[in-house]
Amino acid sequence: MSFDLSRIRADFPILSRQVNNKPLVYLDNGASAQKPQVVIDAVTQAYSSEYANVHRGLHYLSNLATDKYEAVRGKLARFLNAASEEHIVLNSGTTEGINLVAYGWAMPRFEAGDEIVLSIMEHHANIIPWHFLRERMGVKLTWVDVDINGDLDPEAVIAAIGPKTKLVAITQMSNVLGTVVDVKTITQAAQARGVAVLVDGSQAAVHMAVDVQDIACDFYAITGHKLYGPSGSGAIYIKPERMAEMRPFMGGGDMIRDVGREEVTYNTPPMMFEAGTPGIVQQIGLGVAVDYMMGIGMQQIAAHEASICAYARQRLDGLNWLNVQGHSASKGAIFSFTLDGAAHAHDISTVLDKKGIAVRAGHHCAQPLMDHLAVSATCRASFAMYNTKAEVDALVEGLEFCHELFG
Amino acid sequence: MSFDLSRIRADFPILSRQVNNKPLVYLDNGASAQKPQVVIDAVTQAYSSEYANVHRGLHYLSNLATDKYEAVRGKLARFLNAASEEHIVLNSGTTEGINLVAYGWAMPRFEAGDEIVLSIMEHHANIIPWHFLRERMGVKLTWVDVDINGDLDPEAVIAAIGPKTKLVAITQMSNVLGTVVDVKTITQAAQARGVAVLVDGSQAAVHMAVDVQDIACDFYAITGHKLYGPSGSGAIYIKPERMAEMRPFMGGGDMIRDVGREEVTYNTPPMMFEAGTPGIVQQIGLGVAVDYMMGIGMQQIAAHEASICAYARQRLDGLNWLNVQGHSASKGAIFSFTLDGAAHAHDISTVLDKKGIAVRAGHHCAQPLMDHLAVSATCRASFAMYNTKAEVDALVEGLEFCHELFG
Repeated sequence: MSFDLSRIRADFPILSRQVNNKPLVYLDNGASAQKPQVVIDAVTQAYSSEYANVHRGLHYLSNLATDKYEAVRGKLARFLNAASEEHIVLNSGTTEGINLVAYGWAMPRFEAGDEIVLSIMEHHANIIPWHFLRERMGVKLTWVDVDINGDLDPEAVIAAIGPKTKLVAITQMSNVLGTVVDVKTITQAAQARGVAVLVDGSQAAVHMAVDVQDIACDFYAITGHKLYGPSGSGAIYIKPERMAEMRPFMGGGDMIRDVGREEVTYNTPPMMFEAGTPGIVQQIGLGVAVDYMMGIGMQQIAAHEASICAYARQRLDGLNWLNVQGHSASKGAIFSFTLDGAAHAHDISTVLDKKGIAVRAGHHCAQPLMDHLAVSATCRASFAMYNTKAEVDALVEGLEFCHELFG
Repeated sequence: MSFDLSRIRADFPILSRQVNNKPLVYLDNGASAQKPQVVIDAVTQAYSSEYANVHRGLHYLSNLATDKYEAVRGKLARFLNAASEEHIVLNSGTTEGINLVAYGWAMPRFEAGDEIVLSIMEHHANIIPWHFLRERMGVKLTWVDVDINGDLDPEAVIAAIGPKTKLVAITQMSNVLGTVVDVKTITQAAQARGVAVLVDGSQAAVHMAVDVQDIACDFYAITGHKLYGPSGSGAIYIKPERMAEMRPFMGGGDMIRDVGREEVTYNTPPMMFEAGTPGIVQQIGLGVAVDYMMGIGMQQIAAHEASICAYARQRLDGLNWLNVQGHSASKGAIFSFTLDGAAHAHDISTVLDKKGIAVRAGHHCAQPLMDHLAVSATCRASFAMYNTKAEVDALVEGLEFCHELFG
């Protein structure tokens, strides 16, 4: 199947809108992606004519909603190439997924002095839950820096694994630098030492085909709203051996088998980890979103984004007053930068916005990386399957305008 | 303002659909309510033309989404009559809200032997988080039974408060019996003894005006999808003194101030308790839903439902082979019942469904109450603002058919 960029763009209604009287150039995909019409339609249809609570309903609408909701588990298993949909826990996204691992797996198993290996470019979602273990239990966080290009050497991560290491928690793709990490090599070495590996797939799963069986990681967390799905949707893949070791995280309906005054027995995984009425409609929308992505083809999406990335690198490299962070050969289409001179990242963002160009400015929920890079904030342009080379040109023109304005 | 039932029904598109070639009679509102067109439109509009991630975006769409999202906090504060929107923590619903209280407030403060007072008619969402404290910390659960009418005597709850009691966790309205609990009297007495009170408002907030300042409870949890809002939306009111005592629950973006390798400082409440990208669009939809309810008027909604309830009581009382559970004078329009003879609740539900009538059958996530009532399951018809006396008649006709079939 060929990659038809104009057809894809036409699938996303927001892309035809204007912002500040200019065509929207949406380059804030690292924060959240826009939604294709099929996802919006699925949400509308669910609420307009097919809505009820799921599980144990027995009436028509409840059965219909349950069938559609539970089908998402299989779609996500295919999307991640999990061996079974039973290995997929549905949740509200990576933050909840990693907290589930911290509370449900790590806290009851780790002891003071145990170590967790992290890269310096983790997102706060893959940092703060581990800080909880440090604060509350005396677990030690071991940080691995990236090199001058923003590359993370798998051997440096492996070298950081010591006899007290219980977990390596690592992103597959930096949300700031775009660096893609060789998580498979890390996982192989960690597991040879009996150490579990959690992969934060928030960014990676958007941009490349993911195969959790090939990576062989223990946990792989994804976020639906970055995957062109609704806000509040998501999932985490958990290897069945790890699931069997976990205790429940949130308590409520659906995750129990029997409840008495003095005892409770829990449902089997993955339901044990899904308390209460789930995000029914947003998960149905996420199922449509990953079907949409797989219909286009993850290889095709990756190839298109690689061409955008190469073009953007070439154009941005031509701006000798622009400091782009991260030059990994593996870099995906995420560009964080600052401008020579006095302009704060927020000012750049504001000026670009006047031209209809949406980028993000700030620490991108990655303060340890900001400290490592010795910057307080960057401006970030992050691309998605629907972005064009013309939008790269628009960004460059906007940056040139900023340079003139602030330079 | 008059209560215009036909106009309200016209606002809910799903109510005009057929199920099994019969007009839908949706009586499963206790599980989840249907959505008015204004809520569906708000969701569609957000995704089609106003979507971006919230907070720190600085570009037009992010500012727009942030303004709309943060406005919901104020709407919910008005809906619950909280003194400030700063007392509202946004989340995915009552299950997450009560788990926040269990993990963030109770776990770091309670000790083995401390007691939590619960009514026997709590929903599992207000039971399992407390079982976690029993299992993990040796906290004792003290249960207060309802009487033969399904009434919960506030004095019985107050009498159960002992010197070791740290929390009373109680529903304002039973999701099985419809019993409304005098939570204000309980709260006054508990707080005079220095005991905090959590109110599960999942059902009550749908059917009556709630005033958390008048109740003066410490925690009040609500669920958006029962309030005519999107799935995955919700909030919990927390008294500021309690917020100040809490530690974070989930860790991630937005709930921090500064993150380093060896230290982390947290954001101020309520943001401290809202980790990661929130349920942006579903919360915007919830804001529209509570505006819709307040526009109709909670008193008007309550009055209409009271008339439906009175009519349903009269009609169902005429069926001497029907065993309705709960006869409180305070009873709201929730009817759980079994039929004399062999028919299982699930069979009744299935037969009613063939006539287009959606009811729920099962334990309704209230197994301790089922044990107390000595039933394994009931059939439940639960009414909402859009239900009619004609739908009560349809239910009665359907039940008469079941009685002939199974009797």
